[in-house]
Amino acid sequence: MNVYIIVDIGGTQIRVGIYPEEGLEPLRLEKIATQGEGKPLDRLIKLVAQTFPSEHTVRSMVVAAPGAIDPHRGIMVSAPNIPGFVNLPLRKVLVDQFNVPVSINNDANMAAMGEWCFGAGQGHHNLIYMTISTGIGGGVIIDDRLLVGERSLATEMGHITVLPDGPRCGCGQRGHLESISSGTGIANYFAEQVALGVPSVLSSAPNPSTREIAEAAKEGDALSIQAIRRGATFLGVAIADYLHLFNPSIVILGGGVTKSGPLFWDTLKENLAKHLCSQEYLAGFDIKPAALGDEVGLLGALGLARMQYHTNHLILS
Amino acid sequence: MNVYIIVDIGGTQIRVGIYPEEGLEPLRLEKIATQGEGKPLDRLIKLVAQTFPSEHTVRSMVVAAPGAIDPHRGIMVSAPNIPGFVNLPLRKVLVDQFNVPVSINNDANMAAMGEWCFGAGQGHHNLIYMTISTGIGGGVIIDDRLLVGERSLATEMGHITVLPDGPRCGCGQRGHLESISSGTGIANYFAEQVALGVPSVLSSAPNPSTREIAEAAKEGDALSIQAIRRGATFLGVAIADYLHLFNPSIVILGGGVTKSGPLFWDTLKENLAKHLCSQEYLAGFDIKPAALGDEVGLLGALGLARMQYHTNHLILS
Repeated sequence: MNVYIIVDIGGTQIRVGIYPEEGLEPLRLEKIATQGEGKPLDRLIKLVAQTFPSEHTVRSMVVAAPGAIDPHRGIMVSAPNIPGFVNLPLRKVLVDQFNVPVSINNDANMAAMGEWCFGAGQGHHNLIYMTISTGIGGGVIIDDRLLVGERSLATEMGHITVLPDGPRCGCGQRGHLESISSGTGIANYFAEQVALGVPSVLSSAPNPSTREIAEAAKEGDALSIQAIRRGATFLGVAIADYLHLFNPSIVILGGGVTKSGPLFWDTLKENLAKHLCSQEYLAGFDIKPAALGDEVGLLGALGLARMQYHTNHLILS
Repeated sequence: MNVYIIVDIGGTQIRVGIYPEEGLEPLRLEKIATQGEGKPLDRLIKLVAQTFPSEHTVRSMVVAAPGAIDPHRGIMVSAPNIPGFVNLPLRKVLVDQFNVPVSINNDANMAAMGEWCFGAGQGHHNLIYMTISTGIGGGVIIDDRLLVGERSLATEMGHITVLPDGPRCGCGQRGHLESISSGTGIANYFAEQVALGVPSVLSSAPNPSTREIAEAAKEGDALSIQAIRRGATFLGVAIADYLHLFNPSIVILGGGVTKSGPLFWDTLKENLAKHLCSQEYLAGFDIKPAALGDEVGLLGALGLARMQYHTNHLILS
């Protein structure tokens, strides 16, 4: 039987799945905490070795990994939360160890692939995927190809400037989308307003999360409503920018912040429409929540593995 | 001999060139004012008929045209400054008339093609071209392919929001890049400041142009310096956005505003660097003035014509 080895490296856990030529059910799926006894790289290799399908023919191994990835050279340039994963030639390490073709890819790009191949974006040719969570990441499909850019640094959707001299972003710059519309951005704004004395039912809670703020907003808490609305407003402006630049037929939003209810989605859509130079961008256009859950990166890497095997169409490495 | 018919439709003039298989010298090049006796479409057809190379074999006719173009369907959707060019099925009209393969394309995209094939962008695979003139337009090459988007509305580089609640843009929205950094945006800001009583050596001139403002800035006029710097600052922020999204190896800037001297270019580059989440985007990256002049659209359409003939690589229509 022909199979693919699919690896998803996260800050919390590493997963390895063995998938057949068709369908989404893995023949085997194992996971392990990313950090524990031994180095993360050794833990990864051990898990792949334990899961390795010796009884089958392995077509390829495709890895989804966090941080800055260079798929052309097969290198993990940096992964902020995983010790030892700096300028790591992971493709070479895995090829040497397991003697199968290996491809290393950014996890946000793989999530975009997952939604495109098997989720909310099926059948589309021009698609934007964003995850609005602690940070903001994303991937873009143009004419059925993943956009990676000259040095694999493209589609950093969270780092466009939406508010000059706005809040400090995790990257150090000011006013980037991520500094305002991510979960962190919304929670920071809320905490600032509480510190300024703005009343809220949550003001006695220590550092409420965006989820708690969204719940309080549903109950009518004015500051919580304002905080969610502010994040969604700037996200709408940013998505209008993306429509002007990429003219996609669908935008798919995943991540915890997108579960903040109608206040979030309605504000977002209203501001998206309000900033377009032409309503033509909305003809035949859809904006939707992500359809896949936690497995989106694994499934995207699976989709890519099959596509790389069957065509040369998607240039990735 | 095998030749291409290249047509450039502008608001002021229509040009038709007959080009051989190699080189940039036309065998014949004719022009006519876009408006005059007869309808623009009739004038266009007459000029092509007069220029038609009956003694040669015509491989194709490629047209660069202003406004909203649908290259897939061969339609000029709208061209604000040319009467009668609304939902005009120009490809069909020209095919019926001249019986050769015809392709209709947006002029800013053709300018990007021109700089890529024959100008400052030769040899690059990921390129952004922008023209900063009365308005702001542009084109993007990704992995050796022109980005057009789902409904040919992509790369409206001038319509991203750079200043929430900023000046009113020509499109009706507020704070778009074009409303601040175009020649119109710079001149409008200057006029507003003069009306507020800010002194300038140009304050007695009726509506000075961006060119006059740039000249006064070179002479040390404080308000003129401020006006040029403001336009260049927001342009730098926008180009940082584009680097995060597209990760090009080169950005090429054309149009009159880019002739505003070192104050413009230095301010632009400084603000570009200042807003990046990582200086990695600048490794191997170049930002340059356009190399071609008035003929950039014609030459881009020529480049496209040859590419469409020789490969199926560039998907355009």
